[in-house]
Amino acid sequence: MSGGLTYRQAGVDIAAADTFVARVARLAAQTHGPEVVAHASRYAGLFSLGAAGAPDYLLAGTCDGVGTKLLVARDAGEYAGLGQDLVAMSVNDLVPLGARPLFFLDYLATGKLDAAAMGVVVEGIAAACRAVGCALIGGETAEMPGVYPPGDFDLAGFAVGLVRRDRLPAPERMRAGDVALALPSTGLHANGFSLARAALLERGGLRLDSHVPELGRTLAAELLAPTALYVVPVLALHERFGFKAAGHITGGGLLGRGAALMSPGCRLRLERARFRRPPVFDMIQRCGGVSDEELGRTFNLGLGFVAIVEREVADAALAADGSPWLPVGEVIAGERGVELV
Amino acid sequence: MSGGLTYRQAGVDIAAADTFVARVARLAAQTHGPEVVAHASRYAGLFSLGAAGAPDYLLAGTCDGVGTKLLVARDAGEYAGLGQDLVAMSVNDLVPLGARPLFFLDYLATGKLDAAAMGVVVEGIAAACRAVGCALIGGETAEMPGVYPPGDFDLAGFAVGLVRRDRLPAPERMRAGDVALALPSTGLHANGFSLARAALLERGGLRLDSHVPELGRTLAAELLAPTALYVVPVLALHERFGFKAAGHITGGGLLGRGAALMSPGCRLRLERARFRRPPVFDMIQRCGGVSDEELGRTFNLGLGFVAIVEREVADAALAADGSPWLPVGEVIAGERGVELV
Repeated sequence: MSGGLTYRQAGVDIAAADTFVARVARLAAQTHGPEVVAHASRYAGLFSLGAAGAPDYLLAGTCDGVGTKLLVARDAGEYAGLGQDLVAMSVNDLVPLGARPLFFLDYLATGKLDAAAMGVVVEGIAAACRAVGCALIGGETAEMPGVYPPGDFDLAGFAVGLVRRDRLPAPERMRAGDVALALPSTGLHANGFSLARAALLERGGLRLDSHVPELGRTLAAELLAPTALYVVPVLALHERFGFKAAGHITGGGLLGRGAALMSPGCRLRLERARFRRPPVFDMIQRCGGVSDEELGRTFNLGLGFVAIVEREVADAALAADGSPWLPVGEVIAGERGVELV
Repeated sequence: MSGGLTYRQAGVDIAAADTFVARVARLAAQTHGPEVVAHASRYAGLFSLGAAGAPDYLLAGTCDGVGTKLLVARDAGEYAGLGQDLVAMSVNDLVPLGARPLFFLDYLATGKLDAAAMGVVVEGIAAACRAVGCALIGGETAEMPGVYPPGDFDLAGFAVGLVRRDRLPAPERMRAGDVALALPSTGLHANGFSLARAALLERGGLRLDSHVPELGRTLAAELLAPTALYVVPVLALHERFGFKAAGHITGGGLLGRGAALMSPGCRLRLERARFRRPPVFDMIQRCGGVSDEELGRTFNLGLGFVAIVEREVADAALAADGSPWLPVGEVIAGERGVELV
């Protein structure tokens, strides 16, 4: 195959998936009563606690897996980070709504239970739950010979959080001049692995156990760095100052997720000089001949979480001792989208 | 292979899985704060709504898949019932605690999205959610080439319910003379498929499209009958009368789940003459040379849900017009367990 790799060529057709997801959304809407609360942020479903006599509170529910990062873990025989990936993918989707994680459940399916490897995964899940103050209250371990070959498995996670209705982000208040604060990613997190594997392993001929000087570690160690847990810094920002919108940068990449954060008439202008793009993204681009656009619509490019705040809030948040936030750009008037300058 | 088939020979080692699940439970306990509420029923995790100013209410969370019933659906090309199976496996696990389902999320992972087949699955999920008054508030559709071959997929479901703390079942009040009320199953539901497939398809040489006179339909139609939704009748019983304990008869079968329902010093005596055992279980036993014990520890044998109530409650519940409940046995003094007489 010649020419640059795309996510679609790597086996994932985002456009077809989007059409399917739109159909699912229509079917889901038919199940919604008045307790289901609509919000511009699609990171979590919201459900009113009116039935518990607490209509001022909403539950937020999320569900996610870790994608084909699983295959890298399996091939490297290194499972220690996957539990944190799984928890992060769900709880990092609660905090864009300002919701504090309450509890988590995991689904672990395998062909033949490898208790040692899967025990390491569950240890990681429990440690990540403790780190974000979320209780692991249940889950399912399924042995499914014939669905998964021996050694293969899949993971899904589900998280429920709580937010006061009057503390939901208010994207309708977004305007030009607002600041984009961001938190660095630890690398690929758990998105874009089909493209990354095609570029690095197939086209680039690299091996997972290769020590890569540019990365300062093996390719496996780079790719398997666990997804950052953003709950503590995001809720600290939200509780102290509030934010207008926020996003966990996952499928769709920095460009897609950044655009989805914007309210109508708002455009996100991100400055490359304001944050570090980890070299693994350059390697993927080089090995796979991946276009800038494709790269930015697949990967986080170094930013795992973005929040949109008023300028005064940004100044105060950045002035705090040990602030983890980076001022990476601003909202400008224009067509909904992202420009990376 | 000679001799009778067991679930372990069919690829599922329940004892090893139980050891693993015990380890998971220890790890999970390390994540529990005072909001996590212990209860003898293990069907759902319970979490207090104190943080929402509603400490009298508990959330219940469950998670499950449909096991290797997936493979029968795939091989038969018949996906219409799987959505109900998925919802039923989770929401039927909420009602043993008296919890009313609030919302559901689904995880659908596939190698290459077959939008037609998976659309049918999601239609089934939405219809089942409507039937039990539960909102489908989100989910994840993951394309994972390399984890799943094209055409293969997995499903996981997650449900959250609500129960008043003072309405939880009270198994400590169980005593000899209490009555076991049950609801019929629609067949295998979504448990024991690895053993059923090994017995019927491999040993028995049957085909999914064979019309089986004993069943009055094709084997595929029998095996794919959707899992019954028990939410409405169980909550009606619970709200009107309450129950002391209740169980959704899933992995572990009627014998295992029945025993788990019993309080110390209580033994469940079930009378075969009181309920119909669907002929598919006889076929599995015959084709696979499966022992009575193995059969009863794998399959529901015709009863999908069992509730333990006082005799006066049983009389009143059974006297109601159109009562779906069957009086299938009683609690006797003795060693914790089940006897089928």
